[in-house]
Amino acid sequence: MTARTSTDAVDAGEAVTSELDEALTLASQGELGVYGAELGAGWLIGNAVNGGLLMALAGRALSVELARAGSHPDPFAVSAYYLSASTPGPASLRTEVLRTGRSVSTVQVALTQTGADGTDVERVRVLATYGDLDTVAHEVRTTAVPPDLPPPERCLRAADAPPTFLRHAAMLDRLDLRLDPATAGWATGRPSGLGQIRGWLRLADGREPDPLMLLLAADALPPVAFDLGLSGWTPTLELTVHVRARPAPGWLRIGLTTRNVAGGLLEEDAEVWDSGGRLVAQSRQLARVSAPPSGS
Amino acid sequence: MTARTSTDAVDAGEAVTSELDEALTLASQGELGVYGAELGAGWLIGNAVNGGLLMALAGRALSVELARAGSHPDPFAVSAYYLSASTPGPASLRTEVLRTGRSVSTVQVALTQTGADGTDVERVRVLATYGDLDTVAHEVRTTAVPPDLPPPERCLRAADAPPTFLRHAAMLDRLDLRLDPATAGWATGRPSGLGQIRGWLRLADGREPDPLMLLLAADALPPVAFDLGLSGWTPTLELTVHVRARPAPGWLRIGLTTRNVAGGLLEEDAEVWDSGGRLVAQSRQLARVSAPPSGS
Repeated sequence: MTARTSTDAVDAGEAVTSELDEALTLASQGELGVYGAELGAGWLIGNAVNGGLLMALAGRALSVELARAGSHPDPFAVSAYYLSASTPGPASLRTEVLRTGRSVSTVQVALTQTGADGTDVERVRVLATYGDLDTVAHEVRTTAVPPDLPPPERCLRAADAPPTFLRHAAMLDRLDLRLDPATAGWATGRPSGLGQIRGWLRLADGREPDPLMLLLAADALPPVAFDLGLSGWTPTLELTVHVRARPAPGWLRIGLTTRNVAGGLLEEDAEVWDSGGRLVAQSRQLARVSAPPSGS
Repeated sequence: MTARTSTDAVDAGEAVTSELDEALTLASQGELGVYGAELGAGWLIGNAVNGGLLMALAGRALSVELARAGSHPDPFAVSAYYLSASTPGPASLRTEVLRTGRSVSTVQVALTQTGADGTDVERVRVLATYGDLDTVAHEVRTTAVPPDLPPPERCLRAADAPPTFLRHAAMLDRLDLRLDPATAGWATGRPSGLGQIRGWLRLADGREPDPLMLLLAADALPPVAFDLGLSGWTPTLELTVHVRARPAPGWLRIGLTTRNVAGGLLEEDAEVWDSGGRLVAQSRQLARVSAPPSGS
């Protein structure tokens, strides 16, 4: 991306060919480092825009801002702290480059929306380290193994969930999500109790995965709390994603686990594997369980 | 803590009885929300002040700032992004309260030092969610089990490490750290290769654990990379700690694991258990392996 004036539309002239790229489209706000976006109702889960989509949007703004500085293009580590529920409509992303180093850069972004009283209300604050996934060492030494689940055609399509469920999960229309039947018992009132959900994920319109989509993927499956029989709203307080490699095209394989429900909170770990069998992202979030559906 | 004017010394009149509390002592900088601290050479690991100590110091500043606002006292989730190596000497902590909610508050702090050219150099940027550990639900449902290791008296004292090692690890004088012999083979050139380190931890001067000390504990053991035979410098890019309960007095039991070394980076997970057998903190960091000892 070349340098631009503050009045250019960031994405002018680029053909947007997928629902995710449309959701990640940015416009200049007339101030360097500040970008505008439109949060679509198609990414709602419950009454809030999905936290993974917001992280991907923040990641896009940081990528664009760093590209403008000729710096590092890819998220390595991204931490999002969720302050209030995002709603469909305009949003503003104010980026700040904290430090640009030789191999990594550290950046921040605040995503805000205009509240009912006309003041800015912050939705998400994000800190991140960016680097270049194409220049990292090729060596891999891993003891992690991909989640063991049946092939996609023998898994349960999220799109086949009961209409009462889908009504509150508009985002599922954007995704081709196939859940391992062994970890989908909660959908029919029989959670395994093990704290595990496994599934295949790709975007419904065929858009291939990239590092920004991995930020979405880390928070795209049903909450792992469901598999413990905790079926309420589980708002995320904090989500950190490590992007460990550029994903190969095709299905992503995702495993969620939790080990510790305590004090009304639980951790949810996600591992995202690409079609080449590489662990491409690891994430952990701290979420509330059994909380009321709004506010904090 | 009661309201104070901006010229008060934050810790005036409080008896500081431990090395950790001395390291976490704050002074007013004459501006509301900004605190001064002195980074002690006693907390060095290699050429940098330990990242866990910096996180505890950031956590202290956030606790003080929130107490001033009559808000939440305890860290629930804390993410630190390390921008440059901290050195012994004065540091400044600029806090910002992003949102105060009913049950949690979201806060930020930037820790800076004055560089050789007289300008401010940021060392660490921290985002955090604070709450009140005394008011959370008592229910615990966990499948996690404490690390299995011999009692402290049958573990290896870090203080007995070779002088060539201790010379570069001043912080170990502040700690009573006992390592499981089964995961300390790296100290004599025989790493297990499993990516595990287990140990007992308490402060050498007997100061009991509290939530701030848990932030230190999450980054106080030797790097788990050592157990993979990666003995070089492993600077942390990002460290997130979830504090899940107020720890009971006595020994902490800590298990470190890593599963994925790739692209010159690895994740290090820590679980911290208290003497009552409760999982009181969970952390993950992204660190570099085999990098040169300074700069990025």
